[in-house]
Order: sequence, then structure tokens, then C-alpha cells
Amino acid sequence: MEGAPGQAGGTPVTALAQRLIERKRDGGHVEPGEWRALTSAYAAGHVPDYQMAAFLMAAYIRGLDRAETNALTDAMLATGSRLSLDHLGVGRVDKHSTGGVGDKVSLVLAPLVASLGVAVPMMSGRGLGHTGGTLDKLESIPGFRTALSLAEATRQLETIGCALLAQSGEIAPADRKMYALRDATSTVESVPLIAASIMSKKLAEGLTGLVLDVKRGSGAFLPELERGLELAQTMINLGADRGCEVVALITAMDRPLGRACGNALEVEEAIHTLRGEGPPDVLGVTYALGAEMLVLGGAAPSLDAARRSMEVAISSGKAARKFEEIIAAQGGNPGVVDDPSVLPQAGACELFLAPRQGVVARVEPKAIGRGVTALGGGRTRIDDTVDPSVGFVITAKPGDVVQQAEPLATIFARDRAGIESGLAALRQAIIISDEAELPLPLISHRVSAAGVALFEHD
Amino acid sequence: MEGAPGQAGGTPVTALAQRLIERKRDGGHVEPGEWRALTSAYAAGHVPDYQMAAFLMAAYIRGLDRAETNALTDAMLATGSRLSLDHLGVGRVDKHSTGGVGDKVSLVLAPLVASLGVAVPMMSGRGLGHTGGTLDKLESIPGFRTALSLAEATRQLETIGCALLAQSGEIAPADRKMYALRDATSTVESVPLIAASIMSKKLAEGLTGLVLDVKRGSGAFLPELERGLELAQTMINLGADRGCEVVALITAMDRPLGRACGNALEVEEAIHTLRGEGPPDVLGVTYALGAEMLVLGGAAPSLDAARRSMEVAISSGKAARKFEEIIAAQGGNPGVVDDPSVLPQAGACELFLAPRQGVVARVEPKAIGRGVTALGGGRTRIDDTVDPSVGFVITAKPGDVVQQAEPLATIFARDRAGIESGLAALRQAIIISDEAELPLPLISHRVSAAGVALFEHD
Repeated sequence: MEGAPGQAGGTPVTALAQRLIERKRDGGHVEPGEWRALTSAYAAGHVPDYQMAAFLMAAYIRGLDRAETNALTDAMLATGSRLSLDHLGVGRVDKHSTGGVGDKVSLVLAPLVASLGVAVPMMSGRGLGHTGGTLDKLESIPGFRTALSLAEATRQLETIGCALLAQSGEIAPADRKMYALRDATSTVESVPLIAASIMSKKLAEGLTGLVLDVKRGSGAFLPELERGLELAQTMINLGADRGCEVVALITAMDRPLGRACGNALEVEEAIHTLRGEGPPDVLGVTYALGAEMLVLGGAAPSLDAARRSMEVAISSGKAARKFEEIIAAQGGNPGVVDDPSVLPQAGACELFLAPRQGVVARVEPKAIGRGVTALGGGRTRIDDTVDPSVGFVITAKPGDVVQQAEPLATIFARDRAGIESGLAALRQAIIISDEAELPLPLISHRVSAAGVALFEHD
Repeated sequence: MEGAPGQAGGTPVTALAQRLIERKRDGGHVEPGEWRALTSAYAAGHVPDYQMAAFLMAAYIRGLDRAETNALTDAMLATGSRLSLDHLGVGRVDKHSTGGVGDKVSLVLAPLVASLGVAVPMMSGRGLGHTGGTLDKLESIPGFRTALSLAEATRQLETIGCALLAQSGEIAPADRKMYALRDATSTVESVPLIAASIMSKKLAEGLTGLVLDVKRGSGAFLPELERGLELAQTMINLGADRGCEVVALITAMDRPLGRACGNALEVEEAIHTLRGEGPPDVLGVTYALGAEMLVLGGAAPSLDAARRSMEVAISSGKAARKFEEIIAAQGGNPGVVDDPSVLPQAGACELFLAPRQGVVARVEPKAIGRGVTALGGGRTRIDDTVDPSVGFVITAKPGDVVQQAEPLATIFARDRAGIESGLAALRQAIIISDEAELPLPLISHRVSAAGVALFEHD
């Protein structure tokens, strides 16, 4: 795909790349025009991966200032197309999560918010590493298609106000290529690079607002609160400079969110939540994020009013009906909303019993996520196929007092070998102790253009 | 040659590479076994260039400690073969220069020192960027072959005590591949990476001693004295840990060395120097480095005694005869030593005249080197072919008082267009002013295991 390094040098664009590597290596500033030239040349295959890898490592270590983060975002955005949705005449708001285990909130939020009159063009990713991906979850619904073209997504937003789609080759292709390279070269966890990557995709959706769910804690991508706040602030700045207001909530990922972890199992739990029967933590995060989306989208005058509308949309069945519409529009079987048993079912299941009496000190999201992957429900490589039926339903939460042999979780696996691997994963993940450990607050901070505030629970 | 990044992940060796990138990125320490595994996997093509590029950038910025530099040197050395020369029963000493403009000292030193009983297995490189390369100079001698196998080099060392060879695929192939990658990714100028690269090749020659010519000044690779001293110290440590004593001299590269700049022109000047008729600066650097080589090789009891032997070897014609032997052994026309006109001759030549009266303030080596390249005598890419006949002979030296229209240099070019480009280069390179600038001392420091000392001129 590219010449050997020693033979490649000398074209104007590789010479430019080399100068920019050198400048960033020494802590210097790269100008907007240079970001554009480098990014478009990389997307077009004129800058080799090895030069971009060296540049990204220098950028990771030396950092990007606000102007550079802006320029990279715009440069990546410019390599692709964007949705043009002004004619909808309503606010367009998406939610982005930095990723967690058991996080099925998108599946609830998209139909819920769309049912209340805000357009939701939601672009999601696949699971990789220990975190799940919304696309994999959606595709566990028989027939569901996420590979929508921008034209298809636009039509669907016009008709039903929501589209759940994958990042196609049309959207910020430079970001797609660069993200894969960062993944292979340990340059992912950089706040400006993450922010530019997310924002280039989100701006391509033609949003007027974006709500960010920044996870913190042991299972999060950026475990420390400070880095999460930094990411939120960077995203808020990026949005503010481009007519897309951003609000971020900092939420807990020191334990899985809800009970279900695994693709079809999470779809089922999302459906229960849409019907008002979901676990309190899933509902809590959904309402908090949804209220922000409705206010940003101009569909509610206040967060309180937004919350009341959502409660009605759920109790009346309006939100669940919207999910059926979306599923039907994207080729899936809408019957899943009334009867989740149409989802793929695991071949074997077994309870996990408390090995001792005590209190649940921790339920480690990373160990749970890796356990799902070991069952065949996740990926270690981007081209792995995923078994949608497998996973865990974990009823134990940190702080629960448990008796020996009390059921703490159910394992859903393909076969007996899967059950054994699931049992081993849960023994690692669920720590029972004599003393409780203090879990993180479910939602701890709200970050907006006005600054960082402690989150006010009702 | 390698899959796209997103598809590549997952093999044990790319997972190892990723862990080591991450560790070095965060300023951590890589263990000897890890350096071995990474380096050999890279040489074998199992670690893709983009991962190595990210690793090298992290190593460039974070640095390597002494143990890591040792480990990398050994790891690169271990990917190839090495000369086994213990049976020669004499000291084996090479000289390495960090590279400069007009630096033809190797061509003088190798036959001179070999004529006095020290074996000289000298491995050289090609010119790249503004600096020339010994191999290109040698190959301007009609018929001269530098692509010797290790077996051929060994036989020649047994018979005539000297071999002038290129780094073949047999010698530290990991270094060769890594150097090309560093060249394309702006990760060259790192003291530990340079030291490990040089030393892995030099140790493959089976040396008992090495003399290092570290250039300083505007035309040097590491212009600042401090970095040059750091390189010298690092090389001395590397050698000391492996039975190869290293001595370094810091020499001036704020102006070209000698008068001739260009491949055949430099061979001619080297021959004049071997006959005792060379420019004083070339002779001064040759004697200083040669004295160190003879003492390290056990062929002289002191630097003064070594210098006296060299004077005799030159005045008696012994050194020149040794050069004839080497040329004949490597397929070249030995008649060149008596009659340099057998060298390729330029198609056009013209004098460069002083544009004004004044004093020569500077003769900029980089501008001269680029001028030679523009004439066709150097490379901007590794696969460029080189015209051996072109270049400059610059008689003006910093500090010279000159009259308007006095000849300062001669341009040797292929044609009229070349003459014009040469004139333009010299107008840039030779700065005439009202006041002299103080040039760097020709040789300023001597660095050995005992530490750094000011160089004592006779």
C-alpha cells in the first residue's frame, strides 16, 4: 500500500508532513492551512501511515492548543460530506458517550427525545476493547440496518425525526482512518485528539446541540475526573466556535450501568426502560441526558419541564411507539418492542451465586466487558464478528448485602464452555468483602459554557 | 507490505509493540528482552512501520537511559552478522564522522593508518541531505566496488589490512530499516538513537577501538557543542561496555573542511593530502584522528609518536601505496593515485569572483552542500543517482581579506545551467563583510573515558 520509508521521501506532501512532524515534535504550533493540507493528503493516501503515526505521537505528547484542535476538527470534517438539515425547522441534537459497560442509554434516548419533537441524527460506533457499541446492540434486532447513506438518513429524519446510523465513508473519512491508526499506535487517549475526532463526526450530522456523557471511574476511557472535565471543556469550546451548543454530564463508570451487559440483553433492557420498567440508574442517566437534549433542541423551556414530558412519553407508550417506527424504518422487526423474545437467545444460561456472605464492594466494568468479549459478544479486533445473544445480567450492585449462594447474576452463553468462562469472569469482576466501598455518584457534574457545576439530583 | 492499521491489530507481536509504545510514550523504561523482541520482529517485518514510527517518536521525545541505549544497540547488532577478526592479531580501529561538507578525511585516514599496521575495517554511508558520503566519493574512482560481502572484507583485511565497505544487508539490518524510517519521520536527531545506530554497525565490524569525529557548528548534524559532547559520551559508554574503546574529537563544521566539495574533486584532494600536499585543515584533522587510531590500535606508544610515524608514511609514499593496494583490491583503477585525471571530469567549469572587497565572514557548509546537490552531485532521495564530476573547489576561507573580482572558488558543472546554479549557490554561501567573524577552532575538544578535555594543538 505504500513504499518503504527510505524510498518514499521527496514528494512535496511527504516533505510537508516531515516539516510538520518536526515542528510538533519540538512543541511548535501547526497552522490551520497546514492541518488542512496534512489531513486531506492523509485521507487521500498521499501521506503514509508511518508519517502520520509519528505526527500523532508527537501531537499526543506535546498537545494541541484550542486553535489547533479547531483546525484539526474542521480539516477532518472537510474530508467528507455533512447532513444538511436546516429545512427540518426543529433543533437537531445528538448524545455522545465516551463509552462504558452496560451503557444502553442511546437506545432509550433516541426514540424518547425524537418522540418529543427534537430531531435526533445519532451516529454510533461498534464495540471495541471492553466497551460495547450501539451499532452492535441495534444489529441484534433481526433485520436492523445501520449502514444508512446520508440521503437515507435525511429522508428518515424528515419523516420520523430520528436516524440511528453508522459512520459511513461519507462522514469525516480522515477521522476514520486516523482513528484506526491511533488505535494501533497507542495514541488514543489524548483529549484534543478525542475531542476533534468526536466533534468532526458530530458536526457532519448538522447538529444544533450535543449532549456529552463523560464517563469516569475504573471502567471509563479517561478514568480521572480531571481529564473528563478537560474533554468536556474542549468539546464545549469546539461546539461554541461552530454554532453547536454542547452540555456535558459526568457519570459513573466504576460499575456497569443497569443490569444487562451484552448486545441483545441490553436491547431488551432498553425496551423495558422505554416502558418505564428499567433499572433506576439507566432511567436516571436517560432522564438527565434527555432533559438536556430537549432544552438544547428547543422542545422544553426548562430541565424540569423536559423531565415531566419524558415521563409522560414513557407512561403513555409514545416513546416505545417511536422506537417501533425507527426499527421499522431501518428494516428491523418492530415486534421486538412488544415481545423482546424475538431477539437472539443464548444456547445456555446459568446463575452466578455469591461465593460468600458479605457486601458487594465492587463490580468491575472492565472485567465484565472482557467477560462479554470472552463469551463472543465483543471484539478484540475490528473485524471480529459478534454473537448478539451472549452476556450477563448482573443484579448485584455495589453496596448490596448478600448471603452466601444468593444469585448475583445470570450468564448467557453459547455452550457449557462459555458458561465456565462467564463464571470465571464474574468471580474476577464481583468483589465481595466485609466492608462496602463508596461508589461514585451516578451523575456528579454538569459542564456547560457557563462552567462546571455539581449535578443537582432531584 | 502491511495491512491497514485497523485490520492489523491482534497478533502477539503487534500487541507487544503497542504495549511498548504506550510505556515509552508515558516516559517508562523498556527492558532488554523487550528491545530484542521489538527490534527482531521489526527487522523480520512482523511489526508494521507505523507502529515503529510511533515508538521512535516517543523514544525521541522521552529519551533512552544508558541501559536502554545498550539494549537497543545489542538488539540491532543481533539482527545481523559480524566480522570475526580476532585471528588478525592486530588492533582493529575505525573512524566515524557525524558528517560534514568537504569531509574527505576517511579517504586519507584508512590507507594511512592501515599502512602503519592497524587493521581498518571501515564501513561508510552514502551522502544524503547536505552532507556527502564516503561511498559516493570512492565510487567516483573508475571500477571501485564498495558492496563487499563480509567474507570478502575479511579476506581483504587479512591480506592488506583495510577494507572500505558499504553497510550490507548482513550488518544490523534492523538499524538499516529503522534509520530509513527515522529519516522519513523526523526522528533522526536523537543522541541515544544516533549512538545506538552507529555503534550497532561499528560493533559488527569487530573493532577493538573507534575514533569519533563529532562535528559542531552550522553545517553539523548536531550544531551545538553540548549535544555533540553528549553523543561522544554516550558512544564512549556504549563502547566501554563492549570491549571497544572510543575516543572522540570535536571538530569545526562552520565552514567546509579543505577546499574540494564534490565526489571526484574530494578524491583528488584526498590523494594530494596522502602525498603531503593537502590543505592544512584536512591534514590537521587527519593527523589528530589518525594519532588516536594508532594509539588505540596499539601501533604507537603515544599520540606524538603516532604523528611522527604518519608524517613518515606520507613523505615516504607508503600511505599512497597502501591506497593503491586498496583500490586495486576493490576493483578500482589504482592509477588514480599517480594521475587523478582518470577521475570523471566535469563538462564545464568557471571561476567564482568576489562580488566586493572585504573580509570573508562565513562560508556556509549547508549552502555549499545544497549547491553540490543542485549540481547533481548529491541526493535528496536515497535512490537519486549522483554525478561524481561536479562540485566546488573553494579557496576562500573565513578571515581571508579579499579584493573585488578576486577568484574565491571554481565551479565544476555538467553544463552552463549548472554553472549558473553553482554561481547562485556560492553567492548565498560565501558572505563577504567589513568585519571578520571568529570561526570555531578546527579541533576544540577531546573526549575519552577520562572525560572532556580541551584539545591541545601542537
